[in-house]
Amino acid sequence: MNDFGKIFRFTTFGESHGKAIGVVIDGVPAGLKIDEEFIQSEMDRRKPGKNQFATARKEGDKIEILSGVFEGISTGTPISMVIFNTNQKSRDYNNIKDVFRPGHADFTYWNKYGIRDYRGGGRSSARETAARVAAGAVAKLILNQLGIQIESGVVEIGGVRAEIEDFGFAKESEIFALDKNKEQIWKDEIIKAKKSHDSLGGSVKVKIKNLPIGLGEPIYYKLDNVLASAMVSINAVKGIMIGNPNAHQLHGSENNDEISKDGFVSNNAGGILGGISDGEDVEFEVYFKPTPSIFKSQKTIDIHDNELDFKLEGRHDPIVAVRGSVVTEAMSACVIADMLLLNMTRTMENIEKIYKS
Amino acid sequence: MNDFGKIFRFTTFGESHGKAIGVVIDGVPAGLKIDEEFIQSEMDRRKPGKNQFATARKEGDKIEILSGVFEGISTGTPISMVIFNTNQKSRDYNNIKDVFRPGHADFTYWNKYGIRDYRGGGRSSARETAARVAAGAVAKLILNQLGIQIESGVVEIGGVRAEIEDFGFAKESEIFALDKNKEQIWKDEIIKAKKSHDSLGGSVKVKIKNLPIGLGEPIYYKLDNVLASAMVSINAVKGIMIGNPNAHQLHGSENNDEISKDGFVSNNAGGILGGISDGEDVEFEVYFKPTPSIFKSQKTIDIHDNELDFKLEGRHDPIVAVRGSVVTEAMSACVIADMLLLNMTRTMENIEKIYKS
Amino acid sequence: MNDFGKIFRFTTFGESHGKAIGVVIDGVPAGLKIDEEFIQSEMDRRKPGKNQFATARKEGDKIEILSGVFEGISTGTPISMVIFNTNQKSRDYNNIKDVFRPGHADFTYWNKYGIRDYRGGGRSSARETAARVAAGAVAKLILNQLGIQIESGVVEIGGVRAEIEDFGFAKESEIFALDKNKEQIWKDEIIKAKKSHDSLGGSVKVKIKNLPIGLGEPIYYKLDNVLASAMVSINAVKGIMIGNPNAHQLHGSENNDEISKDGFVSNNAGGILGGISDGEDVEFEVYFKPTPSIFKSQKTIDIHDNELDFKLEGRHDPIVAVRGSVVTEAMSACVIADMLLLNMTRTMENIEKIYKS
Amino acid sequence: MNDFGKIFRFTTFGESHGKAIGVVIDGVPAGLKIDEEFIQSEMDRRKPGKNQFATARKEGDKIEILSGVFEGISTGTPISMVIFNTNQKSRDYNNIKDVFRPGHADFTYWNKYGIRDYRGGGRSSARETAARVAAGAVAKLILNQLGIQIESGVVEIGGVRAEIEDFGFAKESEIFALDKNKEQIWKDEIIKAKKSHDSLGGSVKVKIKNLPIGLGEPIYYKLDNVLASAMVSINAVKGIMIGNPNAHQLHGSENNDEISKDGFVSNNAGGILGGISDGEDVEFEVYFKPTPSIFKSQKTIDIHDNELDFKLEGRHDPIVAVRGSVVTEAMSACVIADMLLLNMTRTMENIEKIYKS
Repeated sequence: MNDFGKIFRFTTFGESHGKAIGVVIDGVPAGLKIDEEFIQSEMDRRKPGKNQFATARKEGDKIEILSGVFEGISTGTPISMVIFNTNQKSRDYNNIKDVFRPGHADFTYWNKYGIRDYRGGGRSSARETAARVAAGAVAKLILNQLGIQIESGVVEIGGVRAEIEDFGFAKESEIFALDKNKEQIWKDEIIKAKKSHDSLGGSVKVKIKNLPIGLGEPIYYKLDNVLASAMVSINAVKGIMIGNPNAHQLHGSENNDEISKDGFVSNNAGGILGGISDGEDVEFEVYFKPTPSIFKSQKTIDIHDNELDFKLEGRHDPIVAVRGSVVTEAMSACVIADMLLLNMTRTMENIEKIYKS
Repeated sequence: MNDFGKIFRFTTFGESHGKAIGVVIDGVPAGLKIDEEFIQSEMDRRKPGKNQFATARKEGDKIEILSGVFEGISTGTPISMVIFNTNQKSRDYNNIKDVFRPGHADFTYWNKYGIRDYRGGGRSSARETAARVAAGAVAKLILNQLGIQIESGVVEIGGVRAEIEDFGFAKESEIFALDKNKEQIWKDEIIKAKKSHDSLGGSVKVKIKNLPIGLGEPIYYKLDNVLASAMVSINAVKGIMIGNPNAHQLHGSENNDEISKDGFVSNNAGGILGGISDGEDVEFEVYFKPTPSIFKSQKTIDIHDNELDFKLEGRHDPIVAVRGSVVTEAMSACVIADMLLLNMTRTMENIEKIYKS
Repeated sequence: MNDFGKIFRFTTFGESHGKAIGVVIDGVPAGLKIDEEFIQSEMDRRKPGKNQFATARKEGDKIEILSGVFEGISTGTPISMVIFNTNQKSRDYNNIKDVFRPGHADFTYWNKYGIRDYRGGGRSSARETAARVAAGAVAKLILNQLGIQIESGVVEIGGVRAEIEDFGFAKESEIFALDKNKEQIWKDEIIKAKKSHDSLGGSVKVKIKNLPIGLGEPIYYKLDNVLASAMVSINAVKGIMIGNPNAHQLHGSENNDEISKDGFVSNNAGGILGGISDGEDVEFEVYFKPTPSIFKSQKTIDIHDNELDFKLEGRHDPIVAVRGSVVTEAMSACVIADMLLLNMTRTMENIEKIYKS
Repeated sequence: MNDFGKIFRFTTFGESHGKAIGVVIDGVPAGLKIDEEFIQSEMDRRKPGKNQFATARKEGDKIEILSGVFEGISTGTPISMVIFNTNQKSRDYNNIKDVFRPGHADFTYWNKYGIRDYRGGGRSSARETAARVAAGAVAKLILNQLGIQIESGVVEIGGVRAEIEDFGFAKESEIFALDKNKEQIWKDEIIKAKKSHDSLGGSVKVKIKNLPIGLGEPIYYKLDNVLASAMVSINAVKGIMIGNPNAHQLHGSENNDEISKDGFVSNNAGGILGGISDGEDVEFEVYFKPTPSIFKSQKTIDIHDNELDFKLEGRHDPIVAVRGSVVTEAMSACVIADMLLLNMTRTMENIEKIYKS
């Protein structure tokens, strides 16, 4: 079940240390200018190794388009993109070959499938999210045509919450911080965790602007439940809150968004009512657990059921939420692209617009 | 997009005040004893009108099975169940006919579809969740055969959190309270909100016990992201947290669950690693916004773009989270049933177990 | 797997002698006038008991709409329709309870599911096709708005082929005969088979007119392969030929359709090239095996593996192809409705037409 | 819509003269030995350029596995395979750039998408079928484990039908001829067509042996209607007949297969009853139109609506049916693999076999 979406549907493949990872996107409308530089720039935003707040591991993440584009324009056929894993054979994984790393999928993959590509986490590695970012970049090209924008940034680290949400600042921040006053505190927290061989959780805010009213297909493919599915499918994400994250602690009179001629007076709903976009900014918060890869000794077992003390080696992100924010944007873009296409068929009026003109 | 699931897939239909609501469940394995009394008892758990903490509105919610069952046993063909809306024509809806009630889907349905069955919210009414409970009851019949249990209860109301999680107590509590020491406080809060013509949000804890290891189909049909999708699709649900709801505020060394021969030492993961059940209890929390239907005056507009002060009439739940907990169980049961079926095909060993015996 | 279609997707349920059969249609665009009389008139075209060329069995086939329609207009929510089986308990099925009727699905259902509703064939009864006709009628309402027409008629019975294809005549003919010169010969053949307690096969021609160019989603949801799937899913259908049924016996120079400014010079392709409609009439032929229900003695076994001579009783169509032609139209209409909706999203130009106007 | 299947689901991508074509197979059970040599040998069976009865064009068709296999064993994650188009830039396509070749998809792709990769037919080229053969080879590896065999061969060319069906002979025949007495006649026909710059249609018989009873998911994912969909999705296929291709011309008493203790006495049904495999060989015939690429002058138009006489150049198969037979096998294998997996969940008995052992 490695595909996502109904019309704009992508399928990813590949293991962390296999030959390549990649994605096939089906349902991209024909006539879209495929800006390869933009796609690569999105890849680069997610790419590790850029500063001390992320893993020092280098991944080239060079995207290669294999199909679906002719003379720079999408043709309506599947767009396939691959990233070859350039140095996949370089390491020795004997130390984790038989061990179930705590907080990782090792235990469950082994028990489900009876076999597991242990090199760098195999399929369950966050490396897979590079393929999502590639798909999201193509989705964004569609959204850009319609003036829809997706922004994200870190809203909480180490229990310290942002008080400002400045998406412009986040874009430039090394840790995608939404609040410039909190950036240094958060950086310090990250370095502290790193130095103590530990890791940190965090949360990310996503905002989608200029959406048309009407996106979302009730009752089971609502805009919000599909966004929830998309977000929680991301490695290390454990939760999502749509709109005001404290809505469940409010009274109806506080939480309801009143409506005026000029639109909604407030936006506790996060831009979604009844699973359908209401024209306000779609806003939600995504919660990442701390990176499970830490360098402290932990108790675990191996595949032969031996108990042992395990200490991880290698290079890992001290916090997933930071680079993860790029992935939340990508998945959001894919959801919106799909919803845009689905929503086109909702009225006879639209059908006549296409077929009777 | 009114269906949910891949193999155990159900489709619901019906409007709050139409002739009937109902569900068709495809993919129910043959040979399952269909205990109609149990199904009806699940319907009755969700049913309104039982006490002062829910709406006084009476809904018969009498389930009628139309197909798929022969001599009390499932035949492998679609099980269709309907609930006829016995008194659907009794009310006058002229007051809400043209008005967009704040916090409701009126505005978005109207703008998306250009037409809307305004009677009692039409399709976007929480009445639709009765059909989910019927589907969930059939799913539970499957789960019962395998000893899998799903429990739920209210874990927070009005900002007051449970300190005990007693699912046995919740089952008997009028408000499905998990903490008997908080029950009265919560009841008081509900009555207070009701008296002030207001409503309350709340959150619900769900626990799934005795799951086999291996449920969940990575990368995009993981156990957790499908549960997230299922939960957020429920009316008034705005969020979900899997496992420890504070994981994003922890360090890796705190959040990782160590493993011993006897299983996991802790369960911050909520029983899911890499999107696959790990044998521990699956646990998550679901967040409900306050009922949007309140009896205070609110500013809104009508379909002709006139601004007005609107005051709702009728009977409504002062809190959705209470009866909503029954729906979280039902949706969980459907997800687990689907995952059980999907997981059967994951190894050649399983295939040979079926075809070579 | 009782659903068909991607966007215009319907799910059928029900057994021949259960409480009801029915259909839920998801994805019907909002704003469609739902003409109940037209739907019922389609039901009546399929209905048995009208003349001596069909079974004398009476089925009321009265359609009841349960949802999705408000004040006569579709609302974009699922349209559910049921047909209650008014006299389902009237017969004694002891004679076929344990027996596998030759040519029927009794043997396979029993072996697959381990249980079977033997009354009138249960789910595998051609009675299920009434639900398809209901879905097809709604699809036709969409098609009518766009001027698309679907016609069908019997093109061969007993090895005697039509030489004329007069769809107007077929509409009025008791046996939906395309060739008025062959009608009496075919009627005689049917009566002869009936009198000798036997049955007949036959084939049906379907023509779809005024289709826009562009319908069909290559490579695996082509217009032709989905039509093939739809047709072969109909009870008793064993094959389909798209366009010229002798194309496989021709040379390329004979079979290729040359193109002029005014369109295609011939139509061997049956209006489909590369899986996409080309603007010509879509034409294909559907092949029905003879009714398996015959009144001659046949050798078979029962569920206890006893061999026996079996002689069917009751009332059955001497030929499926005749009433089956109505079902080929219905399924065609559903395919076309789905393809119309899917095709809307194929270009950025269309997307801008919807979202930038 | 470039994917096929529900559980064993593959997605193909790529254009005839793009960088690569390929396939991603999702749902391959873990623990399957992936025999790369076998996969390549299947590719080679389809490969052109081997004799005078196929196009002289050379395609390397070297399969490269990018993911899903670890130490030679499937891991349950997507298996991605690519074939790089080694000499894709070698030709000049100016002569067909703006022209709609009769019998080809040029006209419909252009009209649907507004853009088209004209090089060698782009996505609509039969080259895409190489990706299907790769998927089919993996499916066959599953089938082999269960003793299921798929065979095919040419049954008719130029109106001359086989009188013998010798699948062993077909395997060795240069033109996959089922009847050794007809092989030379057919070869002569092919050479004759080739010499006269024309092409030929033909038909192919497929036989699937040792299937378990019970495959097929009624009512809309029956074994026969999915096979029909699979076959008609193949380039140049215009029809299919399941079982006895003359069933529609028979009486019920002739066509019904009587049943004895030892199984069915005849097999007019082609091994499928009610859409479910009945334990007999599954047999069907697939009809290919003549190759549309011929070297005779034909009338057509270009994208500017100019009429012209067009004469194709290059190298093309004089008959598609021959190499097409390999593709019918591949698609059949994929259908059967999917049906095997789907059928596992059909009874509570199976569920208990997996979860209670």
